[in-house]
Amino acid sequence: MSKGWVNWTRTLNTFLLALVVCTGTAFANAPDPLPSWNSGTAKKAITNFIAGVTMEHGPNYVPIPERIAVFDNDGTLWSEQPMYVQMVFALDRVKALAPQHPEWKEKQPFKAALEGDMKVLFSSGEEGLIEMMVATHAGMTTDEFAEIVKDWLATAKNPKTKRLYTEMIFQPMIELMAYMRANGFKTYIVSGGGVEFMRVFSEQVYGVPPEQVIGSTGKTKFEIRDGKPVIMRMPEITFIDDKEGKPVGINQYIGRRPIAAFGNSDGDFQMLEWTTAGAGPRLAGYVHHDDADREWAYDRNSPIGSLSRGLDEAAKRGWIVVSMKNDWNQIFQVSSK
Amino acid sequence: MSKGWVNWTRTLNTFLLALVVCTGTAFANAPDPLPSWNSGTAKKAITNFIAGVTMEHGPNYVPIPERIAVFDNDGTLWSEQPMYVQMVFALDRVKALAPQHPEWKEKQPFKAALEGDMKVLFSSGEEGLIEMMVATHAGMTTDEFAEIVKDWLATAKNPKTKRLYTEMIFQPMIELMAYMRANGFKTYIVSGGGVEFMRVFSEQVYGVPPEQVIGSTGKTKFEIRDGKPVIMRMPEITFIDDKEGKPVGINQYIGRRPIAAFGNSDGDFQMLEWTTAGAGPRLAGYVHHDDADREWAYDRNSPIGSLSRGLDEAAKRGWIVVSMKNDWNQIFQVSSK
Repeated sequence: MSKGWVNWTRTLNTFLLALVVCTGTAFANAPDPLPSWNSGTAKKAITNFIAGVTMEHGPNYVPIPERIAVFDNDGTLWSEQPMYVQMVFALDRVKALAPQHPEWKEKQPFKAALEGDMKVLFSSGEEGLIEMMVATHAGMTTDEFAEIVKDWLATAKNPKTKRLYTEMIFQPMIELMAYMRANGFKTYIVSGGGVEFMRVFSEQVYGVPPEQVIGSTGKTKFEIRDGKPVIMRMPEITFIDDKEGKPVGINQYIGRRPIAAFGNSDGDFQMLEWTTAGAGPRLAGYVHHDDADREWAYDRNSPIGSLSRGLDEAAKRGWIVVSMKNDWNQIFQVSSK
Repeated sequence: MSKGWVNWTRTLNTFLLALVVCTGTAFANAPDPLPSWNSGTAKKAITNFIAGVTMEHGPNYVPIPERIAVFDNDGTLWSEQPMYVQMVFALDRVKALAPQHPEWKEKQPFKAALEGDMKVLFSSGEEGLIEMMVATHAGMTTDEFAEIVKDWLATAKNPKTKRLYTEMIFQPMIELMAYMRANGFKTYIVSGGGVEFMRVFSEQVYGVPPEQVIGSTGKTKFEIRDGKPVIMRMPEITFIDDKEGKPVGINQYIGRRPIAAFGNSDGDFQMLEWTTAGAGPRLAGYVHHDDADREWAYDRNSPIGSLSRGLDEAAKRGWIVVSMKNDWNQIFQVSSK
C-alpha cells in the first residue's frame, strides 16, 4: 500500500509539472517574472494587466489569439544614443564602400559621412539621409545583406560604453516580453528601423522571430540569378514605419489591434493611441530615459528619440511612464560571456 | 493495494493524455490525420515529409521556428470558379453603390459590371479591373470594410453550387493545414487576393489568424476622426501578391523561407520555386483541378487559375501534383449546419 502511494504521489507530481510546462502557468510562490523592475506603479500596472487578461471568466479576460503586444525597438528595447544603431551601420558602410565610389569624397551627404561631420550630415535633411541609406542598403540580395549586418553586429561597439550593441538591450524589457509570451501573448517589434536589419538579431537577442518584426521597408525584386532564385534589394524606400506609419504597419502586417504597446518617443505616439483606442483592457507605456548615470537622460527636444507630446498626455490617457532611474534596478542585460 | 493501483493507473492515463494534448504528438494507432486523402504518392509525400522534419536527430529534422508552410487561397483552399470570389464581391459592390454613381451607367468598366457583361468587363484589361477594385474597396475605414465583407459572405452564394463561398473550402486542405500545425508548423496564406478581404474569414474558416495572411494590399492612412483614430482605405493598390510578388511578399512579411508551399496555378510558380530552392527537406505541390463532376476541371489556358508551366515542370522539380479526382475522397468541407 505504501509503495503504491509513493508511486501515485510521484506520478501526480510529474503530472502537475507537465501541466506547468505546458501551460506556462505559475502557481503560488512562483519567482518574480520581472526581477529587474522595482516595485511601483509601473510594475503594478503591468502585473495587474496580465492578471486581468489571463483570468478566465474575469471581466478583463482576453482570448489568447487577441493577446498581441507591440514594442518599438530603438530606445525601447535597446539604447539609441548617441545615434541610432542602423545609422552607425550606414556610416560604416559608406566607409567600407568608399573605395568603389571615389565621387563620394566630394558629394554630400557622403562627404560628411566620410569625414564624420554629423552636423553637415544631418543638415542634408531627410532626402540626404535617405540617399545614404539607399546607397548602403540596396544593390545586393537579401541573404547578402543579412550576412553584412550579422558580421557588423559581431564587432561594432557603442562609442560611449564600448559594448556590442546587442549587449545594450534592456533587461527589464526582455523580462517583460518573456513574461507576456509566457502568458499567451505574441510579442511584435514595430520600429522605424529597417525590417531586414532587425530580423538579423531579433530572434536571438529578443526572442522575437522574424515574422513578428515590422519595420521600414525597401523595394525588393524576385530574380533568377545563375539559375537560382534570389530577392534583390532595390534603391527605393517603400514604407517608413514611424508616427502615423506605425498603426498603418500594424494593420497591414498583423491585421488586428494590439492590446499592449510600449515606446519611448513621440514617434510611438500613434501606435499607443491606436492600441488604446480599442475596447477592453489596454496597456500602454513609455520608457523614459532619465538615467544619465547608467544610460542616457533625454526627452523633450532631443535630436534622437524626442519625447514631448507623450509626456504631456500620458497621464490623462492612462499610459504609464516608466522611469529607467526609479523603476529599473538593472538596465542592460547581463552579458552571457 | 488494488485501490492504489487503480488510482495510479488512472493518474498515469491522465498524465499521458495531458502530454498528447500539450505536444500534439500522436502515439501508435492514432487516427489518420488526412482522412479525406486517398492513399497514393501525394499523401505519401506529405506524411513522409512531416515524419522527416519532426524526427529529432533525424537527417531531415527542422527546428519548429523554421516550420513555415505557405498556401495560395483561390483554387488551393477554396473554389475559384466560375470567378474569383473577391471579383464577385466587387461586382456586387458596384451594383450596391450604383445609385450613388449615376455616371457608371455609361462608364466602363462599371457599365459592363452593371450589365453583367463579363466579356466587355475583362476586355477593359488590368487597368479597368483595378479601377473597379479601387472604387469598391476604398473610401472607408478598415473596420467598415471588414463589416461589409462579413455581411456579404454571410449570404452570397456560388452561382453553380448555390452554396455559401465559405462552404466551398477544400476539406483535404483543411486537414493538411491542421496536420501541419499539429506538427509545429505555422501555416500562412499567400494569395493574390486582398489581404483585408481574406482576413475577415481566414481565422474562422481556415484556422489561419489574420497575422498569417499575406495578400495584395492597398494604401491606407491613419487619421483622427471625431477624436477617434481610424485607418482609411485609400484608392491606390500598393502591392500585387502574385507570381514574382509571392516570394517578395513572403520575404517582406515572414522574413524567412518557407519549407512547404501549395498552390494551384502558374501564379504560384515562383512561390514554389522560392520555397524549394532552400537547403534541407522541402515539400511543394499543386492542387490540380481535374474533377468536373465534384468541382471543376481546368488547367492550361483557363482564364482563371491557368496551370501550364507548373504541369510541365513539376515532375523534374520534385513537386507533387495532387489530383482532386484521384487523391481526394471528399472535396468540400462537411457543412457544420
